[in-house]
Amino acid sequence: MAKVLTSKEDNYAQWYNDLVLKSGLAENSAVRGCMVIKPYGYAIWEKMRGELDRMFKATGHENAYFPLFIPKSFFSREADHVEGFAKECAVVTHYRLKTDEKNGGIIVDPDAKLEEELIIRPTSETIIWNTYKNWIQSYRDLPVLVNQWANVVRWEMRTRLFLRTAEFLWQEGHTAHATRKEAEEETMQMVNIYAEFSENFLGIPVLVGSKTESEKFAGAVETLTIEALMQDGKALQAGTSHFLGQNFAKAFDVQFTNQDGKLDYVWATSWGMTTRMIGALVMAHSDNHGLVLPPRVAPIQVVIVPIYKGNDELPPIVETAVNIKEELTKLGISVKFDDRDTHKPGWKFAEYELKGVPVRIAIGPRDIENATVELARRDTLEKKVLPRQGIATYVSTLLEEIQEGIFQKALEFRESHTFPVDSWEDLVDVLDNKGGFALAYWDGTRESEERIKETKATIRCLFREPEPKEGKCVVSGLPTRQRVVIAKAY
Amino acid sequence: MAKVLTSKEDNYAQWYNDLVLKSGLAENSAVRGCMVIKPYGYAIWEKMRGELDRMFKATGHENAYFPLFIPKSFFSREADHVEGFAKECAVVTHYRLKTDEKNGGIIVDPDAKLEEELIIRPTSETIIWNTYKNWIQSYRDLPVLVNQWANVVRWEMRTRLFLRTAEFLWQEGHTAHATRKEAEEETMQMVNIYAEFSENFLGIPVLVGSKTESEKFAGAVETLTIEALMQDGKALQAGTSHFLGQNFAKAFDVQFTNQDGKLDYVWATSWGMTTRMIGALVMAHSDNHGLVLPPRVAPIQVVIVPIYKGNDELPPIVETAVNIKEELTKLGISVKFDDRDTHKPGWKFAEYELKGVPVRIAIGPRDIENATVELARRDTLEKKVLPRQGIATYVSTLLEEIQEGIFQKALEFRESHTFPVDSWEDLVDVLDNKGGFALAYWDGTRESEERIKETKATIRCLFREPEPKEGKCVVSGLPTRQRVVIAKAY
Repeated sequence: MAKVLTSKEDNYAQWYNDLVLKSGLAENSAVRGCMVIKPYGYAIWEKMRGELDRMFKATGHENAYFPLFIPKSFFSREADHVEGFAKECAVVTHYRLKTDEKNGGIIVDPDAKLEEELIIRPTSETIIWNTYKNWIQSYRDLPVLVNQWANVVRWEMRTRLFLRTAEFLWQEGHTAHATRKEAEEETMQMVNIYAEFSENFLGIPVLVGSKTESEKFAGAVETLTIEALMQDGKALQAGTSHFLGQNFAKAFDVQFTNQDGKLDYVWATSWGMTTRMIGALVMAHSDNHGLVLPPRVAPIQVVIVPIYKGNDELPPIVETAVNIKEELTKLGISVKFDDRDTHKPGWKFAEYELKGVPVRIAIGPRDIENATVELARRDTLEKKVLPRQGIATYVSTLLEEIQEGIFQKALEFRESHTFPVDSWEDLVDVLDNKGGFALAYWDGTRESEERIKETKATIRCLFREPEPKEGKCVVSGLPTRQRVVIAKAY
Repeated sequence: MAKVLTSKEDNYAQWYNDLVLKSGLAENSAVRGCMVIKPYGYAIWEKMRGELDRMFKATGHENAYFPLFIPKSFFSREADHVEGFAKECAVVTHYRLKTDEKNGGIIVDPDAKLEEELIIRPTSETIIWNTYKNWIQSYRDLPVLVNQWANVVRWEMRTRLFLRTAEFLWQEGHTAHATRKEAEEETMQMVNIYAEFSENFLGIPVLVGSKTESEKFAGAVETLTIEALMQDGKALQAGTSHFLGQNFAKAFDVQFTNQDGKLDYVWATSWGMTTRMIGALVMAHSDNHGLVLPPRVAPIQVVIVPIYKGNDELPPIVETAVNIKEELTKLGISVKFDDRDTHKPGWKFAEYELKGVPVRIAIGPRDIENATVELARRDTLEKKVLPRQGIATYVSTLLEEIQEGIFQKALEFRESHTFPVDSWEDLVDVLDNKGGFALAYWDGTRESEERIKETKATIRCLFREPEPKEGKCVVSGLPTRQRVVIAKAY
């Protein structure tokens, strides 16, 4: 079969783009910067959404839905927030089209101008806190633990499928609490849920840490992030959880009577994860044959392909395939039996490798004779002939093994690409030559951070270590106990 | 407890609005015409979405996601379509805000004007058929069976929670087929799925039929609809399925090579159901005490309320409640044990009546003594004392009974509010005095239909009967075999 992907060693960015297109995950649309998420890509999103939603509900959160539109004036209420988002907003100014009497075609009706322009939500803190004002009067109304699954728009100039698109899908949690402590705990709980989801479900190891002042969310007191490492040595911010303090409560005047009968402003968090994670999933595990999907997120976990020449060879193969499918389905495994006669087995093998189906079972006449099947693992590309008897149990265990193997491989990659650096030269060497995470001491000043940014890398997060030691800032040489994770990033 | 709802006999519209607000389904937002769907309302939507999604997938459909934005020029391509939707579009004209140097605050940046305006999708036929052009070359690429869950915007001047909002949530299926016959069958299949969903899941009986030329979807060859009857005698269009012929394929030049090797335009359908169905659900079954939810769509199917005076009465009650909850959960029933000590039992009873929880179980000290529980049905408001032993099985059967009972009640209401009419006077009498569906002969002309519209009613659909007989048009008196369903409608 012809090679369909640019190899990732030749051109990582092209490999990624080829892979997203050819595996049928997504494509660019007629609208600049907006993608079409194709059925296979959307099936992955559905799996992710299902698992995250389960985790949110298990921790007491409920879903709700708030308007797509935000009145322009709402943005100005929180000073940092407008600063952070004003540059990238889609603005609705009119509410009607009309026929162009002169030239034909349709034009925007100038008589249908909105009194106040509406912004397509880039994030919903403002409209939600304006709503919470009516929901919260007393400590008895708290906490409010609400999440929203929605589309948002940030007008990006350079876009890439999944990684950076003008419109994307996400969830945004917005919680309200009576105390600072409770809000801080929520912020931490949610970033930990993201980390657990990323590692256990997507097989992507992540570092958890705080963002610096300059990198935190516009309007937050503190932003916690999970940072993943892609196979090209670049970091990807995979989810963030913000402690918003009382900033939005003050901006929208959301006060409550506390248990002592006194008025206080409500404490807030927000946290989000997006379709960008599909990009991370692709880049973390895949190879030059196509996607490598951890079984838990794979829409199809096992594919069965019949191998036969004449139609008379087919019936016993079909019978075996159908039985195996049934056995696997009973174990909760999603199986596709691809019995199309329009495509040859070789084509199907390549196709399901491209699509990252974790396990492939092929059944031919000889297998029927010997009561065997041929089993191939997508992650290692190993093939084995196995007894037909007991295959379902074998596959069930194997899927767990593959899930764990994919995570371990990514973890080893990250560990071999995490470099403690003590000097500016070492830092630059990691960033320019080795790729990966550089662990460096930082004096905490904006100046040193700016200097780091000149390398095109950023401080991804403050590094958490159980027993911080003193070291010298990689920029200024000043003594400090704070280490940070520095990397080039998506 | 004070009456919280306007009675529906006094003011049906006000009763509806009170009920939606007070049961916590939704509220108006700061953005004109846009609602906030609150957690309880969204939980109902999640149940609906889950069931519909299951039905779509069981019939071979996959989900995907297409852009929120549609280039203005796309609309003009299908003449009827633009005519139908141009008057109610939210239009994005700019992509940036900036600080107002003169007056402070933020303004739309005049330098960030889009070359071509973008319309917020009111429906996605145009952007999707523009995409399908690249997906479909040969009959082998067909059928394409895709559905999208999304938000859409239609700029309505008069809005009502769920029933008519500027932004709403829906699903829109868009399928592509090689033959007219297959597309027509799909159109029929999907309207039947809507009917089944409406009747079996929501307990709302519906009539299935075609729309007239003047009432069909803008761009369709034929529109099939399901029409439900609300308790005030008004009809509600609850879901539509459109046979689009080759209209969109021609507008977007989507041709394919058929099995004979010849080029042909692709045949299309589209079909949608929206959050409006939550409004229908409320209006079809509820009463002056609050919502009445069929068990299958109820987020909480059973609530358990403890009745006790001192805290020493509590432990055996809690133990029993927890055990019953566990037994019910094992049967797949969703149960809430409301053990809050901040609210009295009477308050809780009223609250769960308002929220339409189908079954309430109360447990007090005497129940512990006698090994009984008190069980109340929301639909009939009947109360019974029952033995604790075997309660889970009893409830499981009862929930089915309630589901069926709610449907039967609505069906009886519709049957007693469906009137064959033979004269104009009878028609007007039904519309003005009785309410409900009038079955009348119609000569098929636009003139007669317009005359009917002058009564403020519309032809909801052509009436299907196994053996049509001849009758006289209720307007013109001309002979015809076509009966239609006429009603005032939401």
